[in-house]
Amino acid sequence: MLLYDRLVSPAILDRARREATRVFVGKDVGESTLSQDRINELLLDHARRGMKVARLKGGDPFVFGRGGEELAALARHGIPVTVVPGITAALGAAAAAKIPLTLRDVSQSVTFAPGHVAAADTLDWPALARSGHTVVFYMAMAELDGLTQRLRKAGAPADRPVTLIAQATLPTQRVVHGTLTDIAELARTGGFGAPALLFVGDVTRVVQQQALEDLEPCLEGVA
Amino acid sequence: MLLYDRLVSPAILDRARREATRVFVGKDVGESTLSQDRINELLLDHARRGMKVARLKGGDPFVFGRGGEELAALARHGIPVTVVPGITAALGAAAAAKIPLTLRDVSQSVTFAPGHVAAADTLDWPALARSGHTVVFYMAMAELDGLTQRLRKAGAPADRPVTLIAQATLPTQRVVHGTLTDIAELARTGGFGAPALLFVGDVTRVVQQQALEDLEPCLEGVA
Repeated sequence: MLLYDRLVSPAILDRARREATRVFVGKDVGESTLSQDRINELLLDHARRGMKVARLKGGDPFVFGRGGEELAALARHGIPVTVVPGITAALGAAAAAKIPLTLRDVSQSVTFAPGHVAAADTLDWPALARSGHTVVFYMAMAELDGLTQRLRKAGAPADRPVTLIAQATLPTQRVVHGTLTDIAELARTGGFGAPALLFVGDVTRVVQQQALEDLEPCLEGVA
Repeated sequence: MLLYDRLVSPAILDRARREATRVFVGKDVGESTLSQDRINELLLDHARRGMKVARLKGGDPFVFGRGGEELAALARHGIPVTVVPGITAALGAAAAAKIPLTLRDVSQSVTFAPGHVAAADTLDWPALARSGHTVVFYMAMAELDGLTQRLRKAGAPADRPVTLIAQATLPTQRVVHGTLTDIAELARTGGFGAPALLFVGDVTRVVQQQALEDLEPCLEGVA
């Protein structure tokens, strides 16, 4: 049987055996139709009845994917589990928008952090605000104003370059470049919606600069 | 044509057209046979001659993969590029060793950092030493003593749990659990070799605890 999330595309589900039971559990974009406890229960119940259970998620199960909780629930009852890694949203979006996450002389490390306010007090904001480092906030849309203000208060400059990517890697993907100061307004006027990732750091400027440089020959022709 | 790294397996290369030119450029594990400038040149030269060029790397090109540099070199000359994301080593190893990178009430964020000493001075060691956070050091084998000592000096406790994973996801994969204090010695006595990743944080203990709990029924039987 398959338990799958909202972010799993129909094209993937179609690859399962026709007679396999499919259970939509609706997590991953806030509107959970089932609680995590109920999902754990379903996994456990079906495994105990001798079924092979596939738990399908968008992205990687171990990066903001609750994979650890589900693994722990099953391990406690001695159910053997194989974990298949995935392309977590930050990697997919980075490739699609051509933003290197690390780049020699620009960024030596990268942090994935949650963008929702519930987690805000557990984060090391001065570290996230530091230069020479890339930060990708997951689920960044709902609290974009709060996020950018917190980074500013922790010492990040107003003109720190950022990129917001909504619906990353889907045909509906949208990308907007800006700074900590203007990105929330750009997202509002552009009508950006969840799910979205916020990339923070000089690596986002590499793309912007390339775009400008690519334009230069055309502009010279016009002048 | 294909330009490929040491970490690309023969099974992947076999999927290319038989007549495609294959160029081994040998980067990714220190022993580069070609400089990065020379690789950029090869990419550019072949693209300019009208060839479709595939640059194959192990992992994700944008996480310690020099993908940004190659992209920039090609973009400067107007060569169109598509970037395909990959399972970066930290995700593959985490799945294989069942270490969730984020976990509710344990770790709210994850940082990927380079383990080689050249990058050490650009990193925010107090942030990396903080609890409630997962850190994965890439290329961690060569300087394992220095790495763990630096984390200790930056405030990480001696018993901070860590896991070292060598040859992650390959049939030769090896995993050892320990602490900041004993992991370098465990690696030496165990004969661990590069490439290896060091996972730092309480998430690594989830697996260790599960292993202990799984053992309990057996131990009770013995007592």
